[in-house]
Amino acid sequence: MFEVAELKSTLDKTSYAAQVPDLRMQLLDLQQKIETAGITVVFLVAGLDCAGKGDIIHTLNEWMDPRYMGTHAFGRPSEDERERPNHWRYWMAQPPRGRIGIFTVGWYGPPLADRLYSRIDEAAFLAELAHINRLEKAWASDGALVVKCWLHLSKKQQRKIIDKTESDPETRWKITEIEHEHLKLYDDFLVIAEKALRETNTPEAPWFLVNGYDSHYRRIAVGRHLAQCITARLEGVRNKCAKSGPPVSSPGPSILSAVDLKAQLGKKAYQEEKSAFQSRISRLTRLARQQKRSAMLVFEGWDAAGKGGVIRRITPAMDARNYRVIPIAAPTDEERAHHYLWRFWRHLPRDGNVTIYDRSWYGRVLVERVEGFASDEEWRRAYSEINDFEEELTGHGIILLKFWLHISKDEQAKRFREREQTRYKRYKITEDDLRNREKWEAYEQAVNDMVTQTSTSYAPWHIVAANDKYHARIEVFRTLCKAYQRALKL
Amino acid sequence: MFEVAELKSTLDKTSYAAQVPDLRMQLLDLQQKIETAGITVVFLVAGLDCAGKGDIIHTLNEWMDPRYMGTHAFGRPSEDERERPNHWRYWMAQPPRGRIGIFTVGWYGPPLADRLYSRIDEAAFLAELAHINRLEKAWASDGALVVKCWLHLSKKQQRKIIDKTESDPETRWKITEIEHEHLKLYDDFLVIAEKALRETNTPEAPWFLVNGYDSHYRRIAVGRHLAQCITARLEGVRNKCAKSGPPVSSPGPSILSAVDLKAQLGKKAYQEEKSAFQSRISRLTRLARQQKRSAMLVFEGWDAAGKGGVIRRITPAMDARNYRVIPIAAPTDEERAHHYLWRFWRHLPRDGNVTIYDRSWYGRVLVERVEGFASDEEWRRAYSEINDFEEELTGHGIILLKFWLHISKDEQAKRFREREQTRYKRYKITEDDLRNREKWEAYEQAVNDMVTQTSTSYAPWHIVAANDKYHARIEVFRTLCKAYQRALKL
Repeated sequence: MFEVAELKSTLDKTSYAAQVPDLRMQLLDLQQKIETAGITVVFLVAGLDCAGKGDIIHTLNEWMDPRYMGTHAFGRPSEDERERPNHWRYWMAQPPRGRIGIFTVGWYGPPLADRLYSRIDEAAFLAELAHINRLEKAWASDGALVVKCWLHLSKKQQRKIIDKTESDPETRWKITEIEHEHLKLYDDFLVIAEKALRETNTPEAPWFLVNGYDSHYRRIAVGRHLAQCITARLEGVRNKCAKSGPPVSSPGPSILSAVDLKAQLGKKAYQEEKSAFQSRISRLTRLARQQKRSAMLVFEGWDAAGKGGVIRRITPAMDARNYRVIPIAAPTDEERAHHYLWRFWRHLPRDGNVTIYDRSWYGRVLVERVEGFASDEEWRRAYSEINDFEEELTGHGIILLKFWLHISKDEQAKRFREREQTRYKRYKITEDDLRNREKWEAYEQAVNDMVTQTSTSYAPWHIVAANDKYHARIEVFRTLCKAYQRALKL
Repeated sequence: MFEVAELKSTLDKTSYAAQVPDLRMQLLDLQQKIETAGITVVFLVAGLDCAGKGDIIHTLNEWMDPRYMGTHAFGRPSEDERERPNHWRYWMAQPPRGRIGIFTVGWYGPPLADRLYSRIDEAAFLAELAHINRLEKAWASDGALVVKCWLHLSKKQQRKIIDKTESDPETRWKITEIEHEHLKLYDDFLVIAEKALRETNTPEAPWFLVNGYDSHYRRIAVGRHLAQCITARLEGVRNKCAKSGPPVSSPGPSILSAVDLKAQLGKKAYQEEKSAFQSRISRLTRLARQQKRSAMLVFEGWDAAGKGGVIRRITPAMDARNYRVIPIAAPTDEERAHHYLWRFWRHLPRDGNVTIYDRSWYGRVLVERVEGFASDEEWRRAYSEINDFEEELTGHGIILLKFWLHISKDEQAKRFREREQTRYKRYKITEDDLRNREKWEAYEQAVNDMVTQTSTSYAPWHIVAANDKYHARIEVFRTLCKAYQRALKL
């Protein structure tokens, strides 16, 4: 979930200065329009320490007309607040129609902190999150636009900011023991935050994740997002036509751009590693079968990224009675007559088996989204449906692995040319493949959104650099073995 | 929640025979229409033992065209099913577009049974219910119409059916140890069932409660409901115009018709009881204040039912610094600019205080519904918003009491006439009062729906027979004292 938001995104001073005036004008204009339309806007900023929550609040207050907005920060509950139900103070701060209410952390503060310090157990935490969903849903059903931004940092980035802030006598006061303590708890907090974001990432109030390292970048990213959400609401877009809702993940470098495509492996090293891994895979899958543990391996990736090649090198290591490769093409009539996940439920392996998917249910948020086969509302809804589906799978004990094989556009072109020249590979190139190339950027955005929304602690995405086939295959083998070992507690 | 569904509802043989042919024709016709429209219908029947679940399945299979429907009952999971995630078998049974799938108990079976026999704890139970909501939501978002009926019986009715079935040698085999055991667990089961129904009573898949005592009545009630839901879907009503969604509670006697309005109390007995209760109330509210427990008393009822009179006889028993009476009239401009619950959040007492509402947030589902001030979608949504609100209140420790003062239409007419003749009471009668009288039936339906939807274990409705004012007041005093005693653990 946080993979994309951990990528450092920056904006230089000149570009920033060039973009601010237009954005300010736009936000001021939108503020007037929501006033006229009588729409309540609830804007909530949460995220990690030092990721710039306060800076965003200052910036928005500076950019917009403070007469038509209110800012609300909630500390430890006052006596007045403690003597009412927990959500009382949030209800009291509900912005009236036509106004923007800006909330820092808001109703997410207490449950996150209470869970981090184990003051509440998992069940109580989930109940609090359900409680939050009901609050946001009640406001949204009443016509409020709820926009939520999560400012994120990688652990390294957070440490760097803390060090930098402390080394400057002017800003040293900003860092207290709490920031140091939170840095130590970074990994624990991320597990809790992922759970919270996933459970509260509803159609009524979706989360938007932004890397908070660079102040210029984050201000523009958050400001733009707010403007886009308001514009979409004013146009009533979500209810009418497809493909125009607000963005799912933040602008800036995509998860794919961060992949080091130069990674290589020599032929000899490859062959040695391959046979070592294959015998490990053979042993591990036998063991898993004995323990009645199933596995599902999902392969997605660009055309010609080598999905088939990897699969053909995994299966020889397995007992033929034990696995099944399912290539996913267009659905049958019967499948089309059901929910799109039905056909994947249908092929679920019995305990102890391996199912390998050459393309998968992710088609919904990739090809179906980009080609317009699924409506805006359908593919947006699919993220949480897929997360639920995968939670059921892993909850049942299935080992679920998801790979995206990444190659560059040039590498793809090269492979297409090779295929044309190799007679027995020529059938592999279709009109579709060539058309897909034209939509490379749209697909890259879809992959970025997919990773943001569906890379979960129980079913993370593995992005594999696949310009070099040898490297890619060994990488997949290694990930596979690790996952089996963890699952079988070896 | 079950108050209305516990009322015995019957239909004599002749009326039944007269109604069946039309209903069958209608259902067959609708079946063809959904086939043409490609709509999936998921029809689920759950409820108590002996309440006629099986009979409903037989009846629908007899009435409708079995070629376009499938019936699914799920027993203990087979080996095949155990080797997949829990919901696998339900997904496999998903009816294709254009077909009706009939499910007995379905996905509600395992969580209800597991919780009843304490095989899972409350947190796991809630997680299962959330899981069910996601299943139903996924199907509904995909275009399925989900209709859920709960066949209910009072404990007495259940016992009577068991006795009757056992005394007939022909049917004796139907009653096993399980039925007897369940009868013993009746009260426990009801608490669990209420929780389940409340948590899963979503806009996508609302519950419909039917008294199952009489087979003629229940068949017609359930068949009609199914027909109404399909008709509403075909007309796309819920998305367009107001006030035409399917009914919220079943036809048959209303909760108000079951009230014994003859209940009376002599003046002398009244005065004695009154002063005794007033001193108890005085003591109890003082004690509650010391323990920092708040109370909220909600008074609803017909015009001229005597709400003000009761309130004026409660307050003298309290410390004037300790209570506040809030008469609810039309909202102010500021209140109108917020969610309709905002103004009630606003007036929440601090710990240790009493707030008395002369009319309340229930206006949303009473006057606003009947007069059309709230849209169909708004008042339907309000039930669960109100339940959530009240759960927060009681969760915080607030003692919440809700009274409906019931009088007959004749009694109301008499009181209106008296008011006209009493000079200082004349101001009390307005045009509105007279208009409301014309909508008596609509209000009665609204009250019935309100009790069905919002009478919860933590905040039940108290329906008070108020044709006799003395009786009504003492009844309120008694309920009030009982609630305080329970809350203060006296």
